[in-house]
Amino acid sequence: MVLLEFSMIPLGKGESVSEYVSRSLDIIDRSGLNYRLNPMGTVIEGEWDEVFAVVKQCYERMRQDCPRVSVAIKVDAREGSAGRLEAKVARVEERLGRELNK
Amino acid sequence: MVLLEFSMIPLGKGESVSEYVSRSLDIIDRSGLNYRLNPMGTVIEGEWDEVFAVVKQCYERMRQDCPRVSVAIKVDAREGSAGRLEAKVARVEERLGRELNK
Amino acid sequence: MVLLEFSMIPLGKGESVSEYVSRSLDIIDRSGLNYRLNPMGTVIEGEWDEVFAVVKQCYERMRQDCPRVSVAIKVDAREGSAGRLEAKVARVEERLGRELNK
Amino acid sequence: MVLLEFSMIPLGKGESVSEYVSRSLDIIDRSGLNYRLNPMGTVIEGEWDEVFAVVKQCYERMRQDCPRVSVAIKVDAREGSAGRLEAKVARVEERLGRELNK
Repeated sequence: MVLLEFSMIPLGKGESVSEYVSRSLDIIDRSGLNYRLNPMGTVIEGEWDEVFAVVKQCYERMRQDCPRVSVAIKVDAREGSAGRLEAKVARVEERLGRELNK
Repeated sequence: MVLLEFSMIPLGKGESVSEYVSRSLDIIDRSGLNYRLNPMGTVIEGEWDEVFAVVKQCYERMRQDCPRVSVAIKVDAREGSAGRLEAKVARVEERLGRELNK
Repeated sequence: MVLLEFSMIPLGKGESVSEYVSRSLDIIDRSGLNYRLNPMGTVIEGEWDEVFAVVKQCYERMRQDCPRVSVAIKVDAREGSAGRLEAKVARVEERLGRELNK
Repeated sequence: MVLLEFSMIPLGKGESVSEYVSRSLDIIDRSGLNYRLNPMGTVIEGEWDEVFAVVKQCYERMRQDCPRVSVAIKVDAREGSAGRLEAKVARVEERLGRELNK
């Protein structure tokens, strides 16, 4: 299982791109994979091929309307069980809580 | 006002880096800036100089312990008022909701 | 055809990672795709599936040795012919040259 | 000394952005810092404050013309001497050469 964050920018379609972003989000949502939207991208959890298949689908949908697309992807791949989408944030917040309460 | 997402990886400190991440989060938290933690990074909202000053502080703290640090930063800078940390996600989710309900 | 830049960091393997990077470069080199190495990553040119297949191969090779791998990918996808690996830099440099000589 | 790679995309200015990129390159060139242009970004070498000052200048110049700007930055910070702009690529290529000749 990997965590993948990505964001996709259509060039040549004006400065407001939320219409295109929501189409991507729709594709992600229908993929059945666990995901979280944040203000700068979307984080998906799944096997390598699963998460990259979603990115490709979003890309192909956006390219139907847009002559140029810029994509940024970050992957964090680690041995072990699933559920890191929640666990990573929780672990850091818990540790921070302990330090603030020292 | 800009939105800045960043993540920082210490090299040469093993595969578990949450100790270092929580130190960064502590610095971000004390900065007074509006922020959101996600599984792949932290998004901060503020003026250009403010958000980059926080990144630099986190970097300098991490370099005290770590011989090598890798940093990834994404900035979304747009004219207009603040409050985009919540607004961006809300706008996409609202649009997605409308499409799913069509 | 797309341009894809990527870099891959093994966590938990010390601060010097050039051994792992050279294995990736070997895979890229044998792929037959056009590529350029730069100090922060490697840029490959090819079809979407081709370039991502190379990234996956590099990832799988690195995961054999490393418990955790962090990957950063940027894609610039644009309609039109190939040869952008050289053309993009040349076009900017030519324009810069004209401006400096004004 | 750090290595910083960055790329900057103006939104709302059409799909061809080389005019804006060449303005950035002009600023980088006049900074006096050592740099390398690649098809997906520019890598600069310098102290943390120096390289980020250049990024900020490029950003402010681009924002004069563009309502929205997206910036991607990667930093590799490591103890030791300068000259990594050439050394990193050379070290990997040398190692690759040795392996290919085995």
